[in-house]
Amino acid sequence: MAMVLSLFSPRNILVLSLALNVSLILRVMLSDREGHTHSGFSLRERAVAGDGLQSEVHVRHRERLSTSFAASASIEAEDDKERVISVDHGDPTMYENYWQKMGDKAILVIPGWQSLSYFSDKGNLCWFLEPELAQQIIRLHNLVGNAVTEDRHIVVGTGSTQLYNAVLYALSPQDAVEPINVVTAAPYYSSYPLITDCVKSGIYKWAGDAHKFNKEGPYIELVTTPNNPDGHIRQSVVNKTGGILVHDLAYYWPQYTPISSPANHDLMLFTVSKCSGHAGMRIGWALVKDKEVAKKMVKYIEFSTLGVSKDSQLRAAKILNVISDSCEGAAVESFFESSFQLMAQRWKQLRMAAWQSGLFSLPAFPPEFCTFSRRDFEPLPAFAWLKCEGDIEDCEGFLRGKKILTRGGIHFGFDPKYVRVSLLDRDSTFNNFVARLSSIR
Amino acid sequence: MAMVLSLFSPRNILVLSLALNVSLILRVMLSDREGHTHSGFSLRERAVAGDGLQSEVHVRHRERLSTSFAASASIEAEDDKERVISVDHGDPTMYENYWQKMGDKAILVIPGWQSLSYFSDKGNLCWFLEPELAQQIIRLHNLVGNAVTEDRHIVVGTGSTQLYNAVLYALSPQDAVEPINVVTAAPYYSSYPLITDCVKSGIYKWAGDAHKFNKEGPYIELVTTPNNPDGHIRQSVVNKTGGILVHDLAYYWPQYTPISSPANHDLMLFTVSKCSGHAGMRIGWALVKDKEVAKKMVKYIEFSTLGVSKDSQLRAAKILNVISDSCEGAAVESFFESSFQLMAQRWKQLRMAAWQSGLFSLPAFPPEFCTFSRRDFEPLPAFAWLKCEGDIEDCEGFLRGKKILTRGGIHFGFDPKYVRVSLLDRDSTFNNFVARLSSIR
Repeated sequence: MAMVLSLFSPRNILVLSLALNVSLILRVMLSDREGHTHSGFSLRERAVAGDGLQSEVHVRHRERLSTSFAASASIEAEDDKERVISVDHGDPTMYENYWQKMGDKAILVIPGWQSLSYFSDKGNLCWFLEPELAQQIIRLHNLVGNAVTEDRHIVVGTGSTQLYNAVLYALSPQDAVEPINVVTAAPYYSSYPLITDCVKSGIYKWAGDAHKFNKEGPYIELVTTPNNPDGHIRQSVVNKTGGILVHDLAYYWPQYTPISSPANHDLMLFTVSKCSGHAGMRIGWALVKDKEVAKKMVKYIEFSTLGVSKDSQLRAAKILNVISDSCEGAAVESFFESSFQLMAQRWKQLRMAAWQSGLFSLPAFPPEFCTFSRRDFEPLPAFAWLKCEGDIEDCEGFLRGKKILTRGGIHFGFDPKYVRVSLLDRDSTFNNFVARLSSIR
Repeated sequence: MAMVLSLFSPRNILVLSLALNVSLILRVMLSDREGHTHSGFSLRERAVAGDGLQSEVHVRHRERLSTSFAASASIEAEDDKERVISVDHGDPTMYENYWQKMGDKAILVIPGWQSLSYFSDKGNLCWFLEPELAQQIIRLHNLVGNAVTEDRHIVVGTGSTQLYNAVLYALSPQDAVEPINVVTAAPYYSSYPLITDCVKSGIYKWAGDAHKFNKEGPYIELVTTPNNPDGHIRQSVVNKTGGILVHDLAYYWPQYTPISSPANHDLMLFTVSKCSGHAGMRIGWALVKDKEVAKKMVKYIEFSTLGVSKDSQLRAAKILNVISDSCEGAAVESFFESSFQLMAQRWKQLRMAAWQSGLFSLPAFPPEFCTFSRRDFEPLPAFAWLKCEGDIEDCEGFLRGKKILTRGGIHFGFDPKYVRVSLLDRDSTFNNFVARLSSIR
């Protein structure tokens, strides 16, 4: 054994050992599952496995139904009408399958003595940013070509929600007579107004739909592009003097939309949640041109949470590294290609279901060229902005009657004939959803 | 190899393999250090190793100096006057040594497919709280006897800073004519006023020293006990009708103060940072009696960060588990006993240094019985509230002149003759600090 070990460097052996651990962890989990333990993880895994089994049995029973969509639609029609299906939240659990396939490549090992200090990089303006995460953020943007990173300060946040709060603090004049107005074009992300007015700040306030904004003086305009909830590419709409633009680019990744060019704005927000699917990490980042704005954002995060989880930053660095490696032709499936194929499949299923029902319509998007994947495709948003046609005025209420939970247009400052539907949930949820939708007459 | 493996269960092999990894990680780190790599971690480790070497050489040179304090004092006097020593922040890096000794017991392994969802426990009021962390929090409080956990809701936060923000939101009336006053007795934690007035909330505002508070109407009083910066045990001081009390118990752990009885207040805040030393995790928790208050705190955390890092919650659960095991007589050094001994040693060094200088005084604390360790001892606060005696009016400025960075009394709403000094830094920093302090005449 010692002789064998001497042939390898400690690094080689560590890699081998980690790989061994992965298979062992999997075996232990499997034996736990077989042994009917009751950890949350095992229970969830069993549920997913159960769904898969059900589909399989069904496909055998009716062999003419060859796609998983048709299979689950049929199951749905036969025996699942009472189950509540929630596609309300944009919980990105769809990505679990990809990360399971990555196995040990995406594992993070954190020793107990690591990350005790508050500080990550004392010399950096953003003193709580892990240098490894900063490197991986720049690497990924450069590979995908979706944002300019030169001459930008990176500010890490506890998800892009915290970064949005930090932006409001950083851009609002501290000594103005009136709080600055914050606007965005409807339909807009339903949490923006709630977050903005949460503690009734005296330096900023929510002022609603940018299309209707006609006040004088300074304002902050949020431009979410691709937009949540409707998936459209956006520009600012107010175009008055004194406006400060903030670009929320959470969905500007090539599984959702063609990358047209590197975004090159003063203040851009991104999040791991919608890029890799790791929403539970709570990691986002801002690319900030103005040093003073970046410093104020850092100051806000000190007041808010005194830094950002180092554990999640290290894990985010690991995950982004795996994604970049997969894009550079490592011997694994490309993350963005795999995710793109899944989104394309889901949009196909959803459009088919809406057509089968006849009661719903979906936005149409023209195909565009993607500089990352080098092909033309129609945008495949993370959310569908579904419209109830005909006499149905309250689409959310109508679907709730069918035991489908969605988020109604009113929450997005828009028409209640619309609902937002997440396309990022696990296969079982999504398949049940499209199956039930298709059967609504 | 296969035959050998078949003698063990996958669990046995996993434990062995993890242990192997620890030694490999250490070897890789060591070879990195020898090979002059430039990662932040290796650089810091080299610096610490360098200090150790210097001390060793020095002790050999002057054999009559037997304690590490005396050794480093002498080094200081001879050759280190120009180095800036910062004891300003309460960065708890002192605890790194203990966690290094714990080795693989405190390692966390997170597979890439874990923790994608926003949700940790959908059925729980605090839907983003990892159940394993909740269990470990209750277990540790029950073992230490420092807080009642029965009939309490646990709300997890991104450090206790976020929980403080959440408390303000949850306790402030939303529709009052005036914002509610927030007070605490001076000297108080220097960040409280800055956090409270950060975005000029219309529902709460900082109202300063509780001793001077004489307004009518509702108010929130913070009771930090043991107190930051001065280490004293505190009660509320306002005692008017309409007051709501919040107890910040970050330092109510048996390495800092005798545990007299389980704290039994309506709203209590704790943080991993000062308990185990893992400040970089950014994990704190609140024990909340009133369900509606807990729900509002959860709502605030949704608006602020849409949950709390799952990775850090899982790691915190692991670390608290190791601490509890160590208290229950597992075959490792008790965390609290080890930390208590270190704090006792440091306070001894600090009192000696202040006495040697003759220019400083420190608070005196009567010994009390600790129900956890079953002995009497004088409190050993995480911070020393150091007073410059004689004509020195600006103690922070005076010490800055000696290249010692501290935080002056003015930041704590108090007399500038005082400064706050952290006792939780690494050995090298602390030893250099006491050495330099002792030589000031």
